[in-house]
Amino acid sequence: MRPLRSLIPLEEAQRLAMENLPTIEDTETVSIADAGGRLLAEDIKATLNVPPYSRSAVDGYAVRAEDTYGAGRYSPVKLRIIESVHAGEVPQKTVKEGGAIQIATGAMLPDGANAVVMVENTESKGDEVLVFKPVYPGSDVSGMGEDIKKGDTVLKTGEFLTPAKVGAISSLGITGVKVFRRPQVAVIPTGDEVTAPGEKLERGKIYDINTYTLSSIAREMGAEVSTYPITPDRKKEIREAIESALPTDIILLSGGSSVGERDVIVDVLEEMGEVLFHGIQLKPGKPTVCGKITGEYGGKKRETLVFGMPGYPTSCLTNAYILIAPLLGRLTGNSRPPRVEKKIMSHRIVSTLGRHQIFTVRVEGDTAYPAFKESGAITSMASADGYIQIPANVDLVEKGETVDVTYF
Amino acid sequence: MRPLRSLIPLEEAQRLAMENLPTIEDTETVSIADAGGRLLAEDIKATLNVPPYSRSAVDGYAVRAEDTYGAGRYSPVKLRIIESVHAGEVPQKTVKEGGAIQIATGAMLPDGANAVVMVENTESKGDEVLVFKPVYPGSDVSGMGEDIKKGDTVLKTGEFLTPAKVGAISSLGITGVKVFRRPQVAVIPTGDEVTAPGEKLERGKIYDINTYTLSSIAREMGAEVSTYPITPDRKKEIREAIESALPTDIILLSGGSSVGERDVIVDVLEEMGEVLFHGIQLKPGKPTVCGKITGEYGGKKRETLVFGMPGYPTSCLTNAYILIAPLLGRLTGNSRPPRVEKKIMSHRIVSTLGRHQIFTVRVEGDTAYPAFKESGAITSMASADGYIQIPANVDLVEKGETVDVTYF
Repeated sequence: MRPLRSLIPLEEAQRLAMENLPTIEDTETVSIADAGGRLLAEDIKATLNVPPYSRSAVDGYAVRAEDTYGAGRYSPVKLRIIESVHAGEVPQKTVKEGGAIQIATGAMLPDGANAVVMVENTESKGDEVLVFKPVYPGSDVSGMGEDIKKGDTVLKTGEFLTPAKVGAISSLGITGVKVFRRPQVAVIPTGDEVTAPGEKLERGKIYDINTYTLSSIAREMGAEVSTYPITPDRKKEIREAIESALPTDIILLSGGSSVGERDVIVDVLEEMGEVLFHGIQLKPGKPTVCGKITGEYGGKKRETLVFGMPGYPTSCLTNAYILIAPLLGRLTGNSRPPRVEKKIMSHRIVSTLGRHQIFTVRVEGDTAYPAFKESGAITSMASADGYIQIPANVDLVEKGETVDVTYF
Repeated sequence: MRPLRSLIPLEEAQRLAMENLPTIEDTETVSIADAGGRLLAEDIKATLNVPPYSRSAVDGYAVRAEDTYGAGRYSPVKLRIIESVHAGEVPQKTVKEGGAIQIATGAMLPDGANAVVMVENTESKGDEVLVFKPVYPGSDVSGMGEDIKKGDTVLKTGEFLTPAKVGAISSLGITGVKVFRRPQVAVIPTGDEVTAPGEKLERGKIYDINTYTLSSIAREMGAEVSTYPITPDRKKEIREAIESALPTDIILLSGGSSVGERDVIVDVLEEMGEVLFHGIQLKPGKPTVCGKITGEYGGKKRETLVFGMPGYPTSCLTNAYILIAPLLGRLTGNSRPPRVEKKIMSHRIVSTLGRHQIFTVRVEGDTAYPAFKESGAITSMASADGYIQIPANVDLVEKGETVDVTYF
């Protein structure tokens, strides 16, 4: 058993992982109906104006604005209704002096008209309409190309497709868009004591937890997740498992709780590529290994980040939130920061100087309570709402102190 | 054309929709790998202890604590190593006075031992180990059932399955869990002017935007979305389209921008069920219709909420965020509140008294800028990060005022 090598600060570990994160260049075309939440891989140029013609913004009457000047509640202007246009119809007539065309919201503005009078400011009688309020030219008209001009670049490569951006694309009548493929994550459970759910639990063994928490987080972040069979903590088997998962973007080895197991992962990474760090000044989550493997597949270079995650379910899970989720957010483009709220700490918490602590809490109203039960307890995580961070240079959070709770 | 009936305040519309939201009782069984993000439909009882045996929390030596009393840096206690146990192995020997068993993190505590000395506080020489620090009984031991006790109810029906809760279930070796089915949302585009993307755009027509923004939001919220063909704004066709979408939980009619079109939807809802509200004191998003239809399918009563959404893409989208998303959050159990941050308003904004205004903004640093371009402009929504709400009794937000930005 070798001790951990030099521990590095959390910020340094986060920076190293981010700097060595592979970039995804492969693209695929998805239908506009499935484009939400994807990362755009092309510029979207407008091949038409939106709206494609001037149209009415209200229900009312298309008129020549100059015909309404001087209209008032007690001195209405009387116009002749020459046609009625619904949305989707093309007006057949032209509005001339003294004329008006009844028009529905969204319908095409007839030739000759330059404004629309809202129905609320009119009163119709047979084929005549009284206008009680003057309008200026352009009143309640959405001009052709007012939203998007033909030739404009509407969206650029690298934009994350929110519902509104999907809407902007569909306004152009586009059916398919080029997006970057989703990040690929391989989860390899390791450990001689780990048993797959559904199998008989032998004495001395425990059921696999980390595979399922890690997969849930990675899927939630928009990754494509492959899970691999449970792999014994031996060099040959770990190496073979990693090779079987390549090519991929991120490999998470989810077992390795003992020093011996971590050493196996470090040895394999040194053989296959390079070790980026081995041990973080972090509690929980210290025994985390990270390395990079570079390979060539079909003539294309592919880089893979490999993490040996802590074996304890709680450490594995908090590490996934603070180390892995931001990497996946970068790859999917979904880099919304997490929700952070100020709460009052219910108890005094003692921390170790020199170790950044992730302290899980339950939130009730304005108060944060420790969710902690026992170091490996998955149930304490299951009841936690989020965590507070205690920096390495702070050794005490007082009862009643205001803390920033980051929600899971 | 009939005017809107009595407008109701936004809070009242939200309350009415929430109170009339159907409950989902149908369940399905999903594998633990797919359970993340689902709503649990059964109580999960522990059929075993977690951990299933007492085990070591560190790499070190399993000992009788009493053998280590009095140990110190310069007066170590010498113990005889009788065995070495890795994680997953069952110890073969019993620790007796003066004995120790080398033990890995997670390995089963041997009979006779009641504590573990961390490897850092020992030094081994051949089959002997020097212990430099005393330990108390239970030191660095995770007791059997310390996390979950056999027979405990670990999770209850109605809990939203976060990654940690998925982990708690998998710790029990469970492979499949009963969850409520996902909410079903049917999107029916209406409007004679609406054309499906990919089809030729005739004069007077526009491409369908709302179907894609609404589907994106509903999918993001975890709903199963079905989209229907574009339906003309006529009573018979709207009624047939609604009938073809039943049974379902929520129907979104995504066109209807003119008063005439809304009237058609109101008439159909009055025939098929009841109208809950028709018009909200809200800008944008006033012309929103909501109704409820009750039917029987295979002997089972099913309720459906039907919304006639505003036709303008921006109004349709903000309404989806403030009216529809919370309903889907209730149904999926994913009721995380949105991220809200305080920002400084860059410009003075004038609002109409008596109308709750949703004002979309772009955020840069600490400042919120109006994202607004033109009332129907999807591009202004595409560049928006979120919105501020201006209550009905406020008519002015001053430049430099602090506002709450709710992120999309």
